[in-house]
Amino acid sequence: MMADPKEVFNHIEAEREVFVERLLDYLRKPSISAQGIGMAEVADFLLDFLTSMGLNAEAVPTAGYPVVIGRYKKHDDKPTILLYGHYDVQPPDPLDAWTSPPFEPEIRNGRVYARGAGDNKGQHFAQLLALESLLKTTGELPCNVIVMLEGEEEVGSPHLADFIRTHRDMLNADLVVTSDGPVHESGQATLMFGVRGMISFELRAHGANQDVHSGNWGGVVPNPLWTLVHLLGTMKNAAGEITIEGFHDAVLGPTALEKEALSRLPLDIAKVKVDLGLAALDAPEERGFYERLSQFPTLTINGLHGGYGGEGSKTVLPHEAFAKCDVRLVEAQNVEDIFSKVEAHVKKHAPGVELIRLGGMEPSKTSLEHPFAAALQTAIEQAQGEKPLLVPAMGGSLPDYVFTKILGVPAFVVPYANHDEANHAPNENLELSRFIKGIRTGAAMLLHLAQ
Amino acid sequence: MMADPKEVFNHIEAEREVFVERLLDYLRKPSISAQGIGMAEVADFLLDFLTSMGLNAEAVPTAGYPVVIGRYKKHDDKPTILLYGHYDVQPPDPLDAWTSPPFEPEIRNGRVYARGAGDNKGQHFAQLLALESLLKTTGELPCNVIVMLEGEEEVGSPHLADFIRTHRDMLNADLVVTSDGPVHESGQATLMFGVRGMISFELRAHGANQDVHSGNWGGVVPNPLWTLVHLLGTMKNAAGEITIEGFHDAVLGPTALEKEALSRLPLDIAKVKVDLGLAALDAPEERGFYERLSQFPTLTINGLHGGYGGEGSKTVLPHEAFAKCDVRLVEAQNVEDIFSKVEAHVKKHAPGVELIRLGGMEPSKTSLEHPFAAALQTAIEQAQGEKPLLVPAMGGSLPDYVFTKILGVPAFVVPYANHDEANHAPNENLELSRFIKGIRTGAAMLLHLAQ
Repeated sequence: MMADPKEVFNHIEAEREVFVERLLDYLRKPSISAQGIGMAEVADFLLDFLTSMGLNAEAVPTAGYPVVIGRYKKHDDKPTILLYGHYDVQPPDPLDAWTSPPFEPEIRNGRVYARGAGDNKGQHFAQLLALESLLKTTGELPCNVIVMLEGEEEVGSPHLADFIRTHRDMLNADLVVTSDGPVHESGQATLMFGVRGMISFELRAHGANQDVHSGNWGGVVPNPLWTLVHLLGTMKNAAGEITIEGFHDAVLGPTALEKEALSRLPLDIAKVKVDLGLAALDAPEERGFYERLSQFPTLTINGLHGGYGGEGSKTVLPHEAFAKCDVRLVEAQNVEDIFSKVEAHVKKHAPGVELIRLGGMEPSKTSLEHPFAAALQTAIEQAQGEKPLLVPAMGGSLPDYVFTKILGVPAFVVPYANHDEANHAPNENLELSRFIKGIRTGAAMLLHLAQ
Repeated sequence: MMADPKEVFNHIEAEREVFVERLLDYLRKPSISAQGIGMAEVADFLLDFLTSMGLNAEAVPTAGYPVVIGRYKKHDDKPTILLYGHYDVQPPDPLDAWTSPPFEPEIRNGRVYARGAGDNKGQHFAQLLALESLLKTTGELPCNVIVMLEGEEEVGSPHLADFIRTHRDMLNADLVVTSDGPVHESGQATLMFGVRGMISFELRAHGANQDVHSGNWGGVVPNPLWTLVHLLGTMKNAAGEITIEGFHDAVLGPTALEKEALSRLPLDIAKVKVDLGLAALDAPEERGFYERLSQFPTLTINGLHGGYGGEGSKTVLPHEAFAKCDVRLVEAQNVEDIFSKVEAHVKKHAPGVELIRLGGMEPSKTSLEHPFAAALQTAIEQAQGEKPLLVPAMGGSLPDYVFTKILGVPAFVVPYANHDEANHAPNENLELSRFIKGIRTGAAMLLHLAQ
């Protein structure tokens, strides 16, 4: 039986103006985790909102800011959806680059401009209004719901993984849906299935105990820059292939559905090249654009420094050099395994080079074939009037793994923000039509998951 | 017939105190080319001194400071020796690191401390006193002499090559002797046969028109740091061999005499390693220490910079990176040929990388078998009481090529300064016994060259 969202959609349409006004009220409340501004007030506001809807709500303390939880568990035979979002926002600096002040939301050309409009208040507020709309129109939620709003996403979610590990009992969900980030830059509705992971490290090479003269010591004293050049050259070749032993062991090719999804993603390579001033993409040439971002791990040198960097020349042989690198991991690579392979490689090829681990985040991937994916697609299409683009795990790294790897459930990202939301930047904004579509989507997802 | 320097040596011994006092007077006159201090006064002083001895002296103008020339040409059947030195000195900063002020010479523990004591006033003044001593004791110089003292050595001799080219007529010599720099660090008397040449260049690699996020663009956007790593990796391999095509075409092995000379140079590799904190010398391991500095060209990365260099990690893919390099050339490599080979190599392996030429200086090498070498060895042994170490062309780069390549005559370096003269540094000094030996050596060289 197809779910019929007609009644709740009518309610949302009727409340449109009120919902927008309520969003503006919410955006007027600063909650800047990095600066400790307004966090308790906004947590209280959310707690009141969830409680007033009839959810079992609490602000669960962490070593940092509390996680606001709201639970609705009334159906033994229905799935439980965990809706994740974050109530903290980025600092608004530089203030003078804003057309209207960051915490005095203003509507211009169908968009609301305010810090947090897209990232993430406008998006999780849409989810909460979806719950409210369903409760008002039908008297209940069609499936079980856990709302989970953290207050530390903008400072790197330092306590999120621990929180999940220690509160499994209250997070007993069947799937996670995150509405954060922008839709595909084509503007089309988007359903995402994960992100790549990451490890970052530094390689530090040492030569003599001091810089020496290249004429008197070149050819005698080892040069840490040559050491790094040769070591890095063994890690990735000029054809663009990563050559660390065992690095690709866990890499699986894309599934048929993933291949198809990648081929459907809108793409204008000519525009990419013009925008970035590139004559050609990176090697290997034959790789597809989206395949590069989803199917292949990367090894990027983020920075490399050693020796003289000023004007003209200086005949110095430097005593120290370092390279900072990051690796993007694809499923089913994992942080420990890949770091240990980098470690073994460095030890074998340049035993004198120091390897310093800087960071790591597991990849997260949910299958495009997961049964919930179909329900979400249908819901998005019904709520937004177009089929969503299916985006296999790709791109940058987010702590999505806490859901797939620690909680052990499928996790989907259903972004509501326009691609030019300017998150983390001045004049952050959200198209109001996408906000309303977000409320519709939130409601439709619950109805379809309940089928 | 063996030259007998007994009479002139006796004179030098008798005048010892006076010569030292006269040296102190000379050192009291600052002549800092980089700061334009005292240059004319010192040029005039030298001109007067040369004239008073009976040499045909003049200060020849250049686009910078004049070159002071003194000529003595009385023998049709004797060789002409050109004695090169420089009357400018390094700036004395930092002043507060000096025990006694740089232009108030002070004698402590048998050394005179003053800017210019070793580099180069003490050394060329010894040559001039040698000429004076010969003239006073024998009434003549035993061979023809050209004294050539430039005023721009400490600022890189920018007009020296041009000066030689345009004044060949007044520089018609059979050999050049330079007394500059220190003796071998063992302290033993030293006779040097040239220096390596140099080219320096910068490699500049470009990626996108801006830094981009490694998660969103890694694997798509070319990384200029990888470009440099791979290009440099094709220029010198991990075994320490330079792999630029044709690079070694002009490199000849050492002669039997050079081999023997290299094997006689005092060497304490264990001490070198301790002093520089090294576990091992640079690759290739099997190369002899002095062979590295004389028989092999080098390719040194002086500096390499691109991307993030701060604390921790930053997931950036940089848009630009550069490497600064120098090559030390051995005879018979030359600047134009080697630069064109670097150029062809870069064009072939990384056509997008910009190659910027920074500098170049030809190598200079005089044969150990040259007949004048034997005369100089005998003179040094007689004057200093020990056989000199013979040092084939090696080490850093000096404009010695202007004599061997432009003037086309053999050029020898006969240093008089102690190895710890602290040239270019605070507390520059010269052992007074070496100053006196320098005067003896200057006289003996002329006597033996006249044989």
